[in-house]
Amino acid sequence: MGERPVATLDILQQVVKASPFTDWTGCEVTRCDSGVAELRLPFKKELTQHHGFVHGGVIGFLSDNVSAWAAASVVGDVVTADYSVKLLSPGIGEEFIARGEVVKANKRLVAVESKVYALKEGQKKLVAMGTATILPV
Amino acid sequence: MGERPVATLDILQQVVKASPFTDWTGCEVTRCDSGVAELRLPFKKELTQHHGFVHGGVIGFLSDNVSAWAAASVVGDVVTADYSVKLLSPGIGEEFIARGEVVKANKRLVAVESKVYALKEGQKKLVAMGTATILPV
Amino acid sequence: MGERPVATLDILQQVVKASPFTDWTGCEVTRCDSGVAELRLPFKKELTQHHGFVHGGVIGFLSDNVSAWAAASVVGDVVTADYSVKLLSPGIGEEFIARGEVVKANKRLVAVESKVYALKEGQKKLVAMGTATILPV
Amino acid sequence: MGERPVATLDILQQVVKASPFTDWTGCEVTRCDSGVAELRLPFKKELTQHHGFVHGGVIGFLSDNVSAWAAASVVGDVVTADYSVKLLSPGIGEEFIARGEVVKANKRLVAVESKVYALKEGQKKLVAMGTATILPV
Repeated sequence: MGERPVATLDILQQVVKASPFTDWTGCEVTRCDSGVAELRLPFKKELTQHHGFVHGGVIGFLSDNVSAWAAASVVGDVVTADYSVKLLSPGIGEEFIARGEVVKANKRLVAVESKVYALKEGQKKLVAMGTATILPV
Repeated sequence: MGERPVATLDILQQVVKASPFTDWTGCEVTRCDSGVAELRLPFKKELTQHHGFVHGGVIGFLSDNVSAWAAASVVGDVVTADYSVKLLSPGIGEEFIARGEVVKANKRLVAVESKVYALKEGQKKLVAMGTATILPV
Repeated sequence: MGERPVATLDILQQVVKASPFTDWTGCEVTRCDSGVAELRLPFKKELTQHHGFVHGGVIGFLSDNVSAWAAASVVGDVVTADYSVKLLSPGIGEEFIARGEVVKANKRLVAVESKVYALKEGQKKLVAMGTATILPV
Repeated sequence: MGERPVATLDILQQVVKASPFTDWTGCEVTRCDSGVAELRLPFKKELTQHHGFVHGGVIGFLSDNVSAWAAASVVGDVVTADYSVKLLSPGIGEEFIARGEVVKANKRLVAVESKVYALKEGQKKLVAMGTATILPV
Protein backbone atom coordinates (compact mmCIF):
# COMPACT_ATOMS: atom_id res chain seq x y z
CA MET A 1 0.00 0.00 0.00
CA GLY A 2 3.05 2.20 0.17
CA GLU A 3 2.60 3.71 -3.31
CA ARG A 4 -0.55 5.62 -2.49
CA PRO A 5 -0.19 9.01 -0.83
CA VAL A 6 -1.56 8.73 2.70
CA ALA A 7 -3.44 11.40 4.60
CA THR A 8 -1.54 13.69 6.95
CA LEU A 9 -2.69 16.26 9.48
CA ASP A 10 -2.09 19.09 6.98
CA ILE A 11 -4.03 17.39 4.23
CA LEU A 12 -6.94 16.52 6.48
CA GLN A 13 -7.19 20.03 7.86
CA GLN A 14 -7.70 21.15 4.25
CA VAL A 15 -10.25 18.38 3.67
CA VAL A 16 -12.21 19.45 6.74
CA LYS A 17 -12.34 23.05 5.49
CA ALA A 18 -13.66 21.71 2.17
CA SER A 19 -16.31 19.59 3.90
CA PRO A 20 -19.29 21.80 4.62
CA PHE A 21 -20.92 19.57 7.25
CA THR A 22 -17.78 18.77 9.22
CA ASP A 23 -16.76 22.41 9.03
CA TRP A 24 -20.19 23.57 10.22
CA THR A 25 -20.04 21.31 13.28
CA GLY A 26 -16.78 22.96 14.36
CA CYS A 27 -14.99 19.63 14.31
CA GLU A 28 -11.20 20.00 14.10
CA VAL A 29 -8.71 17.25 13.29
CA THR A 30 -5.81 17.31 15.74
CA ARG A 31 -3.85 14.20 14.79
CA CYS A 32 -3.56 11.99 11.75
CA ASP A 33 -0.62 9.63 11.36
CA SER A 34 0.43 6.02 11.78
CA GLY A 35 -3.09 4.64 11.84
CA VAL A 36 -4.32 7.04 14.51
CA ALA A 37 -6.54 10.09 14.12
CA GLU A 38 -7.90 12.44 16.74
CA LEU A 39 -10.34 15.32 16.66
CA ARG A 40 -11.96 17.85 18.96
CA LEU A 41 -15.41 19.38 18.79
CA PRO A 42 -16.37 22.32 21.00
CA PHE A 43 -19.92 22.15 22.32
CA LYS A 44 -22.49 24.33 20.63
CA LYS A 45 -26.22 24.37 21.15
CA GLU A 46 -26.94 23.66 17.48
CA LEU A 47 -25.56 20.15 18.00
CA THR A 48 -28.00 19.14 20.72
CA GLN A 49 -31.22 17.16 20.94
CA HIS A 50 -34.30 18.04 23.00
CA HIS A 51 -32.69 17.27 26.38
CA GLY A 52 -29.76 19.56 25.68
CA PHE A 53 -27.24 16.76 25.12
CA VAL A 54 -25.16 16.55 21.96
CA HIS A 55 -27.24 14.42 19.57
CA GLY A 56 -26.26 10.74 19.31
CA GLY A 57 -26.13 11.18 15.55
CA VAL A 58 -23.42 13.79 16.03
CA ILE A 59 -21.48 11.46 18.33
CA GLY A 60 -21.72 8.78 15.63
CA PHE A 61 -20.52 11.29 13.05
CA LEU A 62 -17.42 11.96 15.18
CA SER A 63 -16.79 8.24 15.35
CA ASP A 64 -17.23 7.90 11.59
CA ASN A 65 -14.92 10.84 10.82
CA VAL A 66 -12.12 9.83 13.11
CA SER A 67 -12.29 6.24 11.85
CA ALA A 68 -12.08 7.28 8.21
CA TRP A 69 -9.18 9.61 8.98
CA ALA A 70 -7.28 6.95 10.92
CA ALA A 71 -7.67 4.64 7.92
CA ALA A 72 -6.65 7.40 5.51
CA SER A 73 -3.40 7.86 7.42
CA VAL A 74 -2.51 4.31 6.38
CA VAL A 75 -4.09 3.81 2.96
CA GLY A 76 -4.85 7.25 1.51
CA ASP A 77 -8.26 8.06 0.05
CA VAL A 78 -11.08 6.11 1.65
CA VAL A 79 -14.82 5.72 1.92
CA THR A 80 -16.74 4.38 4.92
CA ALA A 81 -18.46 1.03 4.30
CA ASP A 82 -20.07 0.84 7.71
CA TYR A 83 -19.80 2.20 11.20
CA SER A 84 -21.34 1.15 14.45
CA VAL A 85 -21.50 3.10 17.67
CA LYS A 86 -22.51 2.28 21.24
CA LEU A 87 -23.71 5.37 23.08
CA LEU A 88 -22.50 4.88 26.65
CA SER A 89 -23.21 8.21 28.36
CA PRO A 90 -25.16 11.36 27.46
CA GLY A 91 -23.25 13.86 25.35
CA ILE A 92 -22.69 16.46 28.04
CA GLY A 93 -19.57 18.60 28.08
CA GLU A 94 -17.79 21.75 26.97
CA GLU A 95 -15.80 19.83 24.42
CA PHE A 96 -15.69 16.41 22.83
CA ILE A 97 -12.67 14.54 21.66
CA ALA A 98 -12.50 11.39 19.59
CA ARG A 99 -9.74 8.97 18.70
CA GLY A 100 -9.74 6.33 16.01
CA GLU A 101 -7.13 3.63 15.69
CA VAL A 102 -6.58 1.18 12.86
CA VAL A 103 -6.72 -2.40 14.06
CA LYS A 104 -6.02 -4.05 10.73
CA ALA A 105 -5.49 -2.76 7.21
CA ASN A 106 -5.13 -4.54 3.93
CA LYS A 107 -5.67 -3.62 0.30
CA ARG A 108 -9.38 -4.32 0.51
CA LEU A 109 -10.48 -2.84 3.81
CA VAL A 110 -9.40 -1.25 7.04
CA ALA A 111 -10.89 -2.13 10.44
CA VAL A 112 -10.91 0.72 12.94
CA GLU A 113 -11.85 1.15 16.59
CA SER A 114 -12.86 4.50 18.01
CA LYS A 115 -13.75 6.18 21.28
CA VAL A 116 -15.52 9.49 21.89
CA TYR A 117 -15.02 11.38 25.16
CA ALA A 118 -16.69 14.40 26.74
CA LEU A 119 -14.64 16.94 28.67
CA LYS A 120 -16.58 18.60 31.46
CA GLU A 121 -15.09 20.67 34.24
CA GLY A 122 -11.71 19.07 33.75
CA GLN A 123 -13.08 15.50 33.71
CA LYS A 124 -12.87 13.20 30.70
CA LYS A 125 -15.76 10.79 30.34
CA LEU A 126 -16.25 8.03 27.78
CA VAL A 127 -19.36 8.84 25.74
CA ALA A 128 -19.21 6.25 22.96
CA MET A 129 -17.25 3.38 21.49
CA GLY A 130 -17.36 2.49 17.85
CA THR A 131 -16.04 0.26 15.12
CA ALA A 132 -15.90 0.90 11.40
CA THR A 133 -14.98 -0.76 8.16
CA ILE A 134 -13.29 1.70 5.82
CA LEU A 135 -12.48 1.02 2.16
CA PRO A 136 -9.50 2.33 0.21
CA VAL A 137 -10.68 4.00 -3.02
CA MET B 1 -46.07 -1.51 28.01
CA GLY B 2 -49.52 -0.08 27.42
CA GLU B 3 -49.43 2.25 30.42
CA ARG B 4 -46.74 4.50 29.03
CA PRO B 5 -47.77 7.22 26.61
CA VAL B 6 -46.31 6.37 23.22
CA ALA B 7 -44.99 8.84 20.67
CA THR B 8 -47.25 10.02 17.89
CA LEU B 9 -46.62 12.07 14.79
CA ASP B 10 -47.88 15.23 16.51
CA ILE B 11 -45.71 14.71 19.55
CA LEU B 12 -42.61 13.96 17.50
CA GLN B 13 -43.06 16.99 15.31
CA GLN B 14 -42.92 19.04 18.52
CA VAL B 15 -39.86 17.12 19.69
CA VAL B 16 -38.08 17.80 16.40
CA LYS B 17 -38.77 21.53 16.73
CA ALA B 18 -37.29 21.37 20.25
CA SER B 19 -34.20 19.50 19.01
CA PRO B 20 -31.74 22.06 17.68
CA PHE B 21 -29.61 19.66 15.64
CA THR B 22 -32.45 17.75 14.01
CA ASP B 23 -34.22 21.01 13.32
CA TRP B 24 -31.09 22.54 11.80
CA THR B 25 -30.67 19.65 9.38
CA GLY B 26 -34.17 20.25 8.03
CA CYS B 27 -35.21 16.71 8.93
CA GLU B 28 -38.99 16.31 9.17
CA VAL B 29 -40.86 13.37 10.69
CA THR B 30 -43.63 12.21 8.37
CA ARG B 31 -44.93 9.07 10.10
CA CYS B 32 -44.79 7.66 13.60
CA ASP B 33 -47.17 4.90 14.63
CA SER B 34 -47.40 1.16 15.15
CA GLY B 35 -43.66 0.58 15.30
CA VAL B 36 -42.91 2.46 12.11
CA ALA B 37 -41.42 5.92 11.68
CA GLU B 38 -40.52 7.79 8.51
CA LEU B 39 -38.75 11.06 7.83
CA ARG B 40 -37.65 13.24 4.95
CA LEU B 41 -34.62 15.47 4.64
CA PRO B 42 -34.25 17.91 1.76
CA PHE B 43 -30.72 18.20 0.43
CA LYS B 44 -28.73 21.22 1.48
CA LYS B 45 -25.07 21.94 0.83
CA GLU B 46 -24.32 22.33 4.55
CA LEU B 47 -24.90 18.57 4.96
CA THR B 48 -22.22 17.48 2.49
CA GLN B 49 -18.64 16.25 2.66
CA HIS B 50 -15.80 17.25 0.38
CA HIS B 51 -17.10 15.35 -2.66
CA GLY B 52 -20.48 17.06 -2.46
CA PHE B 53 -22.34 13.98 -1.15
CA VAL B 54 -24.40 14.12 2.01
CA HIS B 55 -21.97 13.13 4.78
CA GLY B 56 -22.17 9.51 5.95
CA GLY B 57 -22.49 10.80 9.50
CA VAL B 58 -25.68 12.60 8.47
CA ILE B 59 -26.99 9.42 6.86
CA GLY B 60 -26.28 7.58 10.11
CA PHE B 61 -28.04 10.33 12.05
CA LEU B 62 -31.16 9.79 9.90
CA SER B 63 -30.97 6.08 10.66
CA ASP B 64 -30.59 6.77 14.39
CA ASN B 65 -33.48 9.25 14.47
CA VAL B 66 -35.94 7.12 12.56
CA SER B 67 -35.03 4.08 14.66
CA ALA B 68 -35.56 5.90 17.95
CA TRP B 69 -38.87 7.30 16.70
CA ALA B 70 -40.12 3.91 15.53
CA ALA B 71 -39.31 2.53 18.98
CA ALA B 72 -40.97 5.51 20.69
CA SER B 73 -44.18 4.77 18.81
CA VAL B 74 -44.31 1.49 20.71
CA VAL B 75 -42.74 2.19 24.12
CA GLY B 76 -42.79 5.97 24.64
CA ASP B 77 -39.67 7.83 25.76
CA VAL B 78 -36.46 6.19 24.61
CA VAL B 79 -32.72 6.56 24.35
CA THR B 80 -30.46 4.98 21.72
CA ALA B 81 -28.10 2.33 23.09
CA ASP B 82 -26.39 1.65 19.79
CA TYR B 83 -26.83 2.03 16.09
CA SER B 84 -25.03 0.58 13.14
CA VAL B 85 -25.21 1.66 9.55
CA LYS B 86 -23.93 0.25 6.26
CA LEU B 87 -23.39 2.97 3.67
CA LEU B 88 -24.37 1.36 0.37
CA SER B 89 -24.36 4.25 -2.12
CA PRO B 90 -23.14 7.86 -2.07
CA GLY B 91 -25.60 10.34 -0.57
CA ILE B 92 -26.64 12.02 -3.81
CA GLY B 93 -30.15 13.36 -4.28
CA GLU B 94 -32.58 16.23 -3.93
CA GLU B 95 -34.19 14.62 -0.93
CA PHE B 96 -33.59 11.73 1.45
CA ILE B 97 -36.19 9.60 3.12
CA ALA B 98 -35.72 7.09 5.90
CA ARG B 99 -37.93 4.44 7.41
CA GLY B 100 -37.43 2.60 10.69
CA GLU B 101 -39.41 -0.45 11.72
CA VAL B 102 -39.48 -2.18 15.08
CA VAL B 103 -38.54 -5.84 14.78
CA LYS B 104 -38.96 -6.74 18.44
CA ALA B 105 -39.86 -4.75 21.54
CA ASN B 106 -39.91 -5.72 25.18
CA LYS B 107 -39.69 -3.85 28.45
CA ARG B 108 -35.91 -3.76 28.31
CA LEU B 109 -35.07 -2.93 24.74
CA VAL B 110 -36.37 -2.44 21.25
CA ALA B 111 -34.64 -3.79 18.12
CA VAL B 112 -35.17 -1.70 15.00
CA GLU B 113 -34.23 -1.99 11.33
CA SER B 114 -33.92 1.05 9.10
CA LYS B 115 -33.33 2.03 5.50
CA VAL B 116 -32.30 5.38 4.04
CA TYR B 117 -33.11 6.26 0.43
CA ALA B 118 -32.09 9.10 -1.88
CA LEU B 119 -34.59 10.58 -4.31
CA LYS B 120 -32.99 11.89 -7.48
CA GLU B 121 -34.81 12.87 -10.63
CA GLY B 122 -37.78 10.73 -9.66
CA GLN B 123 -35.66 7.67 -8.81
CA LYS B 124 -35.45 6.16 -5.31
CA LYS B 125 -32.11 4.59 -4.46
CA LEU B 126 -31.11 2.72 -1.31
CA VAL B 127 -28.32 4.65 0.38
CA ALA B 128 -27.97 2.87 3.71
CA MET B 129 -29.31 0.08 5.88
CA GLY B 130 -29.12 0.16 9.63
CA THR B 131 -30.00 -1.57 12.85
CA ALA B 132 -30.36 -0.08 16.30
CA THR B 133 -30.99 -1.06 19.89
CA ILE B 134 -33.23 1.47 21.60
CA LEU B 135 -33.97 1.56 25.33
CA PRO B 136 -37.23 2.63 26.98
CA VAL B 137 -36.51 5.25 29.68
CA MET C 1 -20.00 -9.92 -11.90
CA GLY C 2 -21.63 -12.22 -14.43
CA GLU C 3 -18.39 -13.98 -15.37
CA ARG C 4 -17.87 -15.66 -12.01
CA PRO C 5 -19.69 -18.92 -11.35
CA VAL C 6 -22.25 -18.28 -8.61
CA ALA C 7 -23.22 -20.70 -5.87
CA THR C 8 -26.28 -22.88 -6.33
CA LEU C 9 -28.17 -25.16 -3.98
CA ASP C 10 -26.36 -28.22 -5.36
CA ILE C 11 -22.94 -26.66 -5.01
CA LEU C 12 -23.62 -25.44 -1.48
CA GLN C 13 -24.89 -28.80 -0.34
CA GLN C 14 -21.51 -30.20 -1.40
CA VAL C 15 -19.72 -27.36 0.38
CA VAL C 16 -21.65 -28.07 3.59
CA LYS C 17 -20.66 -31.74 3.46
CA ALA C 18 -17.02 -30.63 3.05
CA SER C 19 -17.29 -28.22 6.00
CA PRO C 20 -16.73 -30.21 9.17
CA PHE C 21 -18.24 -27.70 11.60
CA THR C 22 -21.36 -26.90 9.59
CA ASP C 23 -21.85 -30.59 8.91
CA TRP C 24 -21.44 -31.47 12.59
CA THR C 25 -24.12 -28.98 13.63
CA GLY C 26 -26.63 -30.70 11.34
CA CYS C 27 -27.20 -27.47 9.42
CA GLU C 28 -28.70 -28.06 5.98
CA VAL C 29 -28.95 -25.52 3.15
CA THR C 30 -32.44 -25.55 1.64
CA ARG C 31 -32.31 -22.64 -0.78
CA CYS C 32 -29.60 -20.69 -2.57
CA ASP C 33 -30.43 -18.53 -5.55
CA SER C 34 -31.09 -14.94 -6.62
CA GLY C 35 -29.54 -13.38 -3.54
CA VAL C 36 -31.49 -15.48 -1.07
CA ALA C 37 -30.31 -18.44 0.99
CA GLU C 38 -32.17 -20.49 3.56
CA LEU C 39 -31.16 -23.23 5.94
CA ARG C 40 -32.61 -25.48 8.61
CA LEU C 41 -31.01 -26.84 11.75
CA PRO C 42 -32.71 -29.53 13.82
CA PHE C 43 -32.29 -29.08 17.56
CA LYS C 44 -29.75 -31.24 19.29
CA LYS C 45 -28.58 -31.06 22.87
CA GLU C 46 -24.93 -30.63 21.84
CA LEU C 47 -25.82 -27.16 20.54
CA THR C 48 -27.12 -25.80 23.85
CA GLN C 49 -25.79 -23.64 26.65
CA HIS C 50 -26.33 -24.20 30.38
CA HIS C 51 -30.02 -23.24 30.36
CA GLY C 52 -30.82 -25.73 27.62
CA PHE C 53 -31.28 -23.10 24.89
CA VAL C 54 -29.36 -23.27 21.64
CA HIS C 55 -26.19 -21.23 22.26
CA GLY C 56 -26.22 -17.65 20.96
CA GLY C 57 -22.94 -18.38 19.23
CA VAL C 58 -24.70 -21.11 17.23
CA ILE C 59 -27.49 -18.69 16.32
CA GLY C 60 -24.85 -16.23 15.12
CA PHE C 61 -23.19 -19.00 13.12
CA LEU C 62 -26.50 -19.66 11.34
CA SER C 63 -26.75 -15.97 10.54
CA ASP C 64 -23.17 -15.92 9.24
CA ASN C 65 -23.66 -19.03 7.10
CA VAL C 66 -26.91 -17.98 5.51
CA SER C 67 -25.52 -14.50 4.81
CA ALA C 68 -22.42 -15.84 3.11
CA TRP C 69 -24.51 -18.25 1.05
CA ALA C 70 -26.96 -15.55 -0.03
CA ALA C 71 -23.99 -13.47 -1.18
CA ALA C 72 -22.42 -16.46 -2.94
CA SER C 73 -25.60 -16.92 -4.95
CA VAL C 74 -24.88 -13.53 -6.50
CA VAL C 75 -21.08 -13.22 -6.63
CA GLY C 76 -19.64 -16.74 -6.32
CA ASP C 77 -16.85 -17.49 -3.83
CA VAL C 78 -16.93 -15.27 -0.77
CA VAL C 79 -15.49 -14.66 2.65
CA THR C 80 -17.24 -12.99 5.60
CA ALA C 81 -15.75 -9.62 6.56
CA ASP C 82 -18.09 -9.06 9.49
CA TYR C 83 -21.39 -10.14 10.92
CA SER C 84 -23.57 -8.75 13.63
CA VAL C 85 -26.47 -10.42 15.36
CA LYS C 86 -29.17 -9.25 17.77
CA LEU C 87 -30.46 -12.13 19.91
CA LEU C 88 -34.16 -11.39 20.34
CA SER C 89 -35.55 -14.54 22.00
CA PRO C 90 -34.04 -17.65 23.62
CA GLY C 91 -33.10 -20.41 21.19
CA ILE C 92 -35.90 -22.80 22.09
CA GLY C 93 -37.44 -25.08 19.47
CA GLU C 94 -37.38 -28.42 17.68
CA GLU C 95 -35.90 -26.81 14.60
CA PHE C 96 -34.35 -23.54 13.53
CA ILE C 97 -34.56 -21.92 10.15
CA ALA C 98 -32.63 -18.97 8.83
CA ARG C 99 -32.93 -16.80 5.78
CA GLY C 100 -30.39 -14.38 4.36
CA GLU C 101 -31.12 -11.85 1.66
CA VAL C 102 -28.71 -9.67 -0.26
CA VAL C 103 -29.54 -5.99 0.08
CA LYS C 104 -26.78 -4.66 -2.14
CA ALA C 105 -23.94 -6.26 -4.05
CA ASN C 106 -21.07 -4.77 -5.95
CA LYS C 107 -17.63 -5.96 -7.00
CA ARG C 108 -16.13 -5.06 -3.66
CA LEU C 109 -18.66 -6.21 -1.10
CA VAL C 110 -22.11 -7.60 -0.50
CA ALA C 111 -24.45 -6.36 2.24
CA VAL C 112 -26.84 -8.98 3.60
CA GLU C 113 -29.69 -9.06 6.08
CA SER C 114 -30.70 -12.23 7.89
CA LYS C 115 -33.30 -13.59 10.26
CA VAL C 116 -33.26 -16.73 12.39
CA TYR C 117 -36.49 -18.37 13.55
CA ALA C 118 -37.30 -21.16 15.97
CA LEU C 119 -40.06 -23.64 15.20
CA LYS C 120 -41.80 -24.98 18.29
CA GLU C 121 -45.05 -26.89 18.36
CA GLY C 122 -46.03 -25.50 14.98
CA GLN C 123 -45.20 -21.89 15.90
CA LYS C 124 -42.49 -19.85 14.18
CA LYS C 125 -40.75 -17.32 16.42
CA LEU C 126 -38.10 -14.76 15.51
CA VAL C 127 -34.95 -15.57 17.46
CA ALA C 128 -32.39 -13.24 15.88
CA MET C 129 -31.81 -10.59 13.25
CA GLY C 130 -28.45 -10.01 11.66
CA THR C 131 -26.48 -8.08 9.10
CA ALA C 132 -23.24 -9.03 7.41
CA THR C 133 -20.66 -7.69 5.01
CA ILE C 134 -19.45 -10.42 2.69
CA LEU C 135 -16.50 -10.08 0.30
CA PRO C 136 -16.15 -11.69 -3.13
CA VAL C 137 -12.82 -13.55 -3.35
CA MET D 1 -24.58 -3.69 41.45
CA GLY D 2 -22.60 -4.94 44.39
CA GLU D 3 -25.42 -7.03 45.84
CA ARG D 4 -25.48 -9.56 43.03
CA PRO D 5 -22.99 -12.40 43.12
CA VAL D 6 -20.57 -11.93 40.25
CA ALA D 7 -19.01 -14.67 38.16
CA THR D 8 -15.57 -15.96 39.05
CA LEU D 9 -13.16 -18.27 37.29
CA ASP D 10 -14.32 -21.22 39.44
CA ILE D 11 -17.99 -20.56 38.78
CA LEU D 12 -17.48 -20.14 35.05
CA GLN D 13 -15.46 -23.32 34.75
CA GLN D 14 -18.51 -25.11 36.20
CA VAL D 15 -20.83 -23.26 33.81
CA VAL D 16 -18.70 -24.30 30.83
CA LYS D 17 -18.88 -27.95 31.91
CA ALA D 18 -22.68 -27.58 32.11
CA SER D 19 -22.86 -25.96 28.65
CA PRO D 20 -22.90 -28.76 26.08
CA PHE D 21 -21.89 -26.65 23.07
CA THR D 22 -19.07 -24.74 24.74
CA ASP D 23 -17.83 -27.95 26.30
CA TRP D 24 -17.95 -29.77 22.95
CA THR D 25 -15.81 -27.10 21.27
CA GLY D 26 -13.09 -27.63 23.85
CA CYS D 27 -13.25 -23.98 24.89
CA GLU D 28 -11.76 -23.35 28.33
CA VAL D 29 -12.14 -20.20 30.43
CA THR D 30 -8.77 -19.11 31.80
CA ARG D 31 -9.59 -15.78 33.45
CA CYS D 32 -12.70 -14.09 34.76
CA ASP D 33 -12.44 -11.13 37.11
CA SER D 34 -12.59 -7.35 37.24
CA GLY D 35 -14.37 -6.97 33.92
CA VAL D 36 -11.94 -9.14 32.00
CA ALA D 37 -12.39 -12.70 30.77
CA GLU D 38 -10.07 -14.86 28.72
CA LEU D 39 -10.41 -18.27 27.11
CA ARG D 40 -8.42 -20.73 25.04
CA LEU D 41 -9.61 -23.12 22.38
CA PRO D 42 -7.32 -25.81 20.98
CA PHE D 43 -7.70 -26.39 17.25
CA LYS D 44 -9.69 -29.41 16.18
CA LYS D 45 -10.78 -30.38 12.69
CA GLU D 46 -14.45 -30.49 13.68
CA LEU D 47 -14.37 -26.69 14.08
CA THR D 48 -13.29 -25.94 10.51
CA GLN D 49 -14.97 -24.89 7.29
CA HIS D 50 -14.25 -26.22 3.81
CA HIS D 51 -10.86 -24.51 3.47
CA GLY D 52 -9.61 -26.01 6.73
CA PHE D 53 -9.79 -22.76 8.71
CA VAL D 54 -11.72 -22.52 11.97
CA HIS D 55 -15.24 -21.44 10.94
CA GLY D 56 -16.03 -17.74 11.32
CA GLY D 57 -19.12 -18.72 13.28
CA VAL D 58 -16.86 -20.41 15.83
CA ILE D 59 -14.67 -17.30 16.03
CA GLY D 60 -17.83 -15.26 16.67
CA PHE D 61 -18.89 -17.74 19.33
CA LEU D 62 -15.57 -17.20 21.12
CA SER D 63 -16.16 -13.47 20.99
CA ASP D 64 -19.69 -13.88 22.32
CA ASN D 65 -18.60 -16.18 25.16
CA VAL D 66 -15.70 -14.11 26.35
CA SER D 67 -17.82 -10.95 26.21
CA ALA D 68 -20.60 -12.46 28.27
CA TRP D 69 -18.11 -13.79 30.80
CA ALA D 70 -16.33 -10.43 31.11
CA ALA D 71 -19.71 -8.82 31.80
CA ALA D 72 -20.64 -11.56 34.29
CA SER D 73 -17.50 -10.82 36.28
CA VAL D 74 -18.97 -7.38 36.96
CA VAL D 75 -22.74 -7.88 37.11
CA GLY D 76 -23.38 -11.60 37.70
CA ASP D 77 -25.88 -13.51 35.56
CA VAL D 78 -26.19 -12.16 32.04
CA VAL D 79 -27.64 -12.74 28.61
CA THR D 80 -26.21 -11.49 25.31
CA ALA D 81 -28.36 -8.87 23.56
CA ASP D 82 -26.12 -8.57 20.54
CA TYR D 83 -22.63 -9.21 19.33
CA SER D 84 -20.73 -8.10 16.31
CA VAL D 85 -17.49 -9.47 14.98
CA LYS D 86 -15.05 -8.38 12.28
CA LEU D 87 -13.11 -11.35 10.88
CA LEU D 88 -9.64 -9.97 10.18
CA SER D 89 -7.56 -13.04 9.30
CA PRO D 90 -8.33 -16.69 8.54
CA GLY D 91 -8.70 -18.91 11.60
CA ILE D 92 -5.42 -20.80 11.23
CA GLY D 93 -3.50 -21.97 14.28
CA GLU D 94 -2.88 -24.67 16.83
CA GLU D 95 -4.76 -22.74 19.46
CA PHE D 96 -7.02 -19.71 19.73
CA ILE D 97 -7.26 -17.32 22.61
CA ALA D 98 -9.82 -14.63 23.22
CA ARG D 99 -10.06 -11.75 25.63
CA GLY D 100 -13.11 -9.68 26.49
CA GLU D 101 -13.01 -6.45 28.46
CA VAL D 102 -15.89 -4.45 29.87
CA VAL D 103 -15.85 -0.87 28.59
CA LYS D 104 -18.90 0.34 30.49
CA ALA D 105 -21.39 -1.32 32.82
CA ASN D 106 -24.56 -0.07 34.38
CA LYS D 107 -27.69 -1.68 35.78
CA ARG D 108 -29.25 -1.99 32.35
CA LEU D 109 -26.46 -3.14 30.09
CA VAL D 110 -22.79 -3.84 29.76
CA ALA D 111 -20.69 -2.84 26.73
CA VAL D 112 -17.76 -5.15 25.99
CA GLU D 113 -14.88 -5.21 23.53
CA SER D 114 -13.17 -8.44 22.53
CA LYS D 115 -10.28 -9.74 20.50
CA VAL D 116 -9.59 -13.25 19.21
CA TYR D 117 -6.05 -14.38 18.41
CA ALA D 118 -4.58 -17.44 16.71
CA LEU D 119 -1.37 -18.99 18.00
CA LYS D 120 0.69 -20.63 15.28
CA GLU D 121 4.29 -21.76 15.62
CA GLY D 122 4.83 -19.41 18.51
CA GLN D 123 3.29 -16.39 16.75
CA LYS D 124 0.14 -14.64 17.98
CA LYS D 125 -2.03 -13.17 15.23
CA LEU D 126 -5.19 -11.11 15.56
CA VAL D 127 -8.05 -13.03 13.96
CA ALA D 128 -11.09 -11.00 14.99
CA MET D 129 -12.29 -7.97 16.90
CA GLY D 130 -15.74 -7.75 18.39
CA THR D 131 -18.15 -5.73 20.45
CA ALA D 132 -21.15 -6.90 22.42
CA THR D 133 -24.02 -5.60 24.48
CA ILE D 134 -24.68 -7.87 27.44
CA LEU D 135 -27.70 -7.60 29.74
CA PRO D 136 -27.78 -8.36 33.47
CA VAL D 137 -30.64 -10.79 34.22
